[in-house]
Amino acid sequence: MIPIISIVGKSDSGKTTLIEKLLPELTRRGYRVATVKHDIHGFEVDREGKDSWRHKHAGAHTVVISSPEKIALIRDVEKDLTLDEIRRRWIQDVDLILSEGYKKDVQPKIEVFRKEKHKKLLCTKRDSLVAIVSSQKFSVGVPCFPLEDMKGLSNFIEKEFLKSKEEKEVSLKVDVRTIPMTPFVRGFLTKTVKGMLSSLKGCKTFQRIEIRIEE
Amino acid sequence: MIPIISIVGKSDSGKTTLIEKLLPELTRRGYRVATVKHDIHGFEVDREGKDSWRHKHAGAHTVVISSPEKIALIRDVEKDLTLDEIRRRWIQDVDLILSEGYKKDVQPKIEVFRKEKHKKLLCTKRDSLVAIVSSQKFSVGVPCFPLEDMKGLSNFIEKEFLKSKEEKEVSLKVDVRTIPMTPFVRGFLTKTVKGMLSSLKGCKTFQRIEIRIEE
Repeated sequence: MIPIISIVGKSDSGKTTLIEKLLPELTRRGYRVATVKHDIHGFEVDREGKDSWRHKHAGAHTVVISSPEKIALIRDVEKDLTLDEIRRRWIQDVDLILSEGYKKDVQPKIEVFRKEKHKKLLCTKRDSLVAIVSSQKFSVGVPCFPLEDMKGLSNFIEKEFLKSKEEKEVSLKVDVRTIPMTPFVRGFLTKTVKGMLSSLKGCKTFQRIEIRIEE
Repeated sequence: MIPIISIVGKSDSGKTTLIEKLLPELTRRGYRVATVKHDIHGFEVDREGKDSWRHKHAGAHTVVISSPEKIALIRDVEKDLTLDEIRRRWIQDVDLILSEGYKKDVQPKIEVFRKEKHKKLLCTKRDSLVAIVSSQKFSVGVPCFPLEDMKGLSNFIEKEFLKSKEEKEVSLKVDVRTIPMTPFVRGFLTKTVKGMLSSLKGCKTFQRIEIRIEE
């Protein structure tokens, strides 16, 4: 599962700037990073008058723009998605997800704090705070990195989130629901599927198996 | 599998305008539609200076912007994706996909033709042409609809693409490869998975089963 870290902080504390400084250091180390920006007020990424904008405004539920270098997708959703839902449905092929905002989500958080702007931290360890980035020192039981120390912060992220052994994952979805499984059922399902596929061509070794059955 | 129809035509023939006129008629009939725009020259959907733009320009491989009403995603890809690849990976929850462009893709095509602009059609039946939208009549073995006849065109799309019995679908992906299966293996896999899950809570009836196993 791709690790998620949320960059949180009070308004105008420098969350986007921190992500902007952290990304080049992480990509220089060879990691691919996705970012997720939480925009509770809605947004307009597309430009008025462009073909894709015209499609969306004429009633398209989903609009995709595809080129040989990148793909863009804009679609309606029924509710605010959690970071885990965004990860499962929309993000592949990266080593790390950095979100901006999502203070209320359960994922681990790094708080940016600027003493010129605010007096108190936004998060505590109870909010899954794992580190602070600030020119001020705090004794709240998590490491604190200076505002410019992207190497130190990247070392921390690398050690705590990127080098850990990836969890094995088994999921079962029926229609849109994820079916909870006991360890026994999980093991039984895994062994049965792996056993069943082991004699098929191209299935000897794998990182991930996906089976879809539609009625 | 969600049906795909490509709206094709020579340059300036009115492809976007046709999609714009067709979408309200299809959504009025209760269908959810996704559109796909092919942009071989690359594109810039996001706006300079916005947080998500800053993330992408600082090196993020994928940028997601999430709000309670919609989600947007911009990510790098390694090659121009086919419509089928876009459908499988990025499009869910819709009844129909209308693409603009993709003349060379294998999907069925509707050509828009304006006699004031061009002399000859772009496609023939060999290019999977299924209909023409034009003020001119053509005898090329496919139905021809007047430029303003969105009801007639929607009836055609409904009859040919939306009311057909949905195909049953079983797919098996190992890492990024889709493993081809003979009808025997397909049947065996389906029956084994359905049998195995039939005693689990919440799995009595279903439209779709998805199993993912990661090592």
